[in-house]
Amino acid sequence: MFVGCQFSLYPMTDRFVEVILSAVDGLKDRGDVRVETDDLSTLLVGSPRAVFGGIERCFLKAAAAPGHVVLNATFSRGCPGEPDDPICRPERPRAAGALLDVRGLPRSGCDVAAQFAVYPLGIEGYMDVIAREIDETKKAGVFARGKHFCTRLGGDASHVFAAMLNAFERAGERAGHLVLTATVSKGSPTESPSARERIGRGGNA
Amino acid sequence: MFVGCQFSLYPMTDRFVEVILSAVDGLKDRGDVRVETDDLSTLLVGSPRAVFGGIERCFLKAAAAPGHVVLNATFSRGCPGEPDDPICRPERPRAAGALLDVRGLPRSGCDVAAQFAVYPLGIEGYMDVIAREIDETKKAGVFARGKHFCTRLGGDASHVFAAMLNAFERAGERAGHLVLTATVSKGSPTESPSARERIGRGGNA
Repeated sequence: MFVGCQFSLYPMTDRFVEVILSAVDGLKDRGDVRVETDDLSTLLVGSPRAVFGGIERCFLKAAAAPGHVVLNATFSRGCPGEPDDPICRPERPRAAGALLDVRGLPRSGCDVAAQFAVYPLGIEGYMDVIAREIDETKKAGVFARGKHFCTRLGGDASHVFAAMLNAFERAGERAGHLVLTATVSKGSPTESPSARERIGRGGNA
Repeated sequence: MFVGCQFSLYPMTDRFVEVILSAVDGLKDRGDVRVETDDLSTLLVGSPRAVFGGIERCFLKAAAAPGHVVLNATFSRGCPGEPDDPICRPERPRAAGALLDVRGLPRSGCDVAAQFAVYPLGIEGYMDVIAREIDETKKAGVFARGKHFCTRLGGDASHVFAAMLNAFERAGERAGHLVLTATVSKGSPTESPSARERIGRGGNA
């Protein structure tokens, strides 16, 4: 099985190069993911936990700087035509304990707003898989509201990433090929409804 | 049919609020799309051409400022459970002339790097649909190279957006529910291979 993610960090600052470089620094050193970067995104290949863990660490490093930073990520598992890769070894959610206890995880201290979508490919009953994963985010305490084409999440970054990893593991058992897209944001000037009303429709278009 | 897009602009500058506000200004005035914004993204609902056209205009306005700006967008058509909306009226690609002649379009003058993916949902033969759309980007002259999980495009912004709109229209005829994700970037400091070699793995993570 081939598992990985294309992700990008967007620090909304003149210092964006420095913030990105310092965030992705060290990704390769752990040896649990394969890393390839170009000007559009960074590819991580590895087990779901290693990939989500690496991206969460990158995001938290970038989010430690003041200001507004956004992560965009597309996670994929089981894409036909991709090679088997021994580094990927997905955990099997059917095995007891493979899914994370989201509410019980330590908090990172970084509050985020996020939205995500899961796309189980090649199966007719994909909407049921999607509905179940949305429901699971409610149980995990990170659901904020439905939006057109995606689901809004909120809470501590560690809880939000863990809930999305669980969705990726669980839905991946129902569809051979699964894609999960995510946007995670910290420090938007329009984050609170009152601020949003003041700034109008701007914030982040 | 419900057709729309959640999109975000990421200007990598301290002045990001100003760049975003000026880019999205005027979206509502044309009356051909419905617009809803929160701190994570802006929703446009309308016909495929109106939605792609609105987002291309926003991106070009933001890209007129100096520096690095990125658009992330998730286009969707035919999602089950979304209401029919009379504003959507997709053009029918089967009708002669509905698809754009990408190579014949006027250039915007803005060169971009992009990557996109199409997800035809609920059908077994979805990989054939994807393969055909990748092939069509080659015919349109905007294909750059395959990447894991997506296809890299490059060229004038108007040609890249037109090729993606064609993919959205054409693949939408094969799958009742279609999602297309896109990243479009201008002004990355790692845009050229030589610059990328100098900066190493940074640029945009």
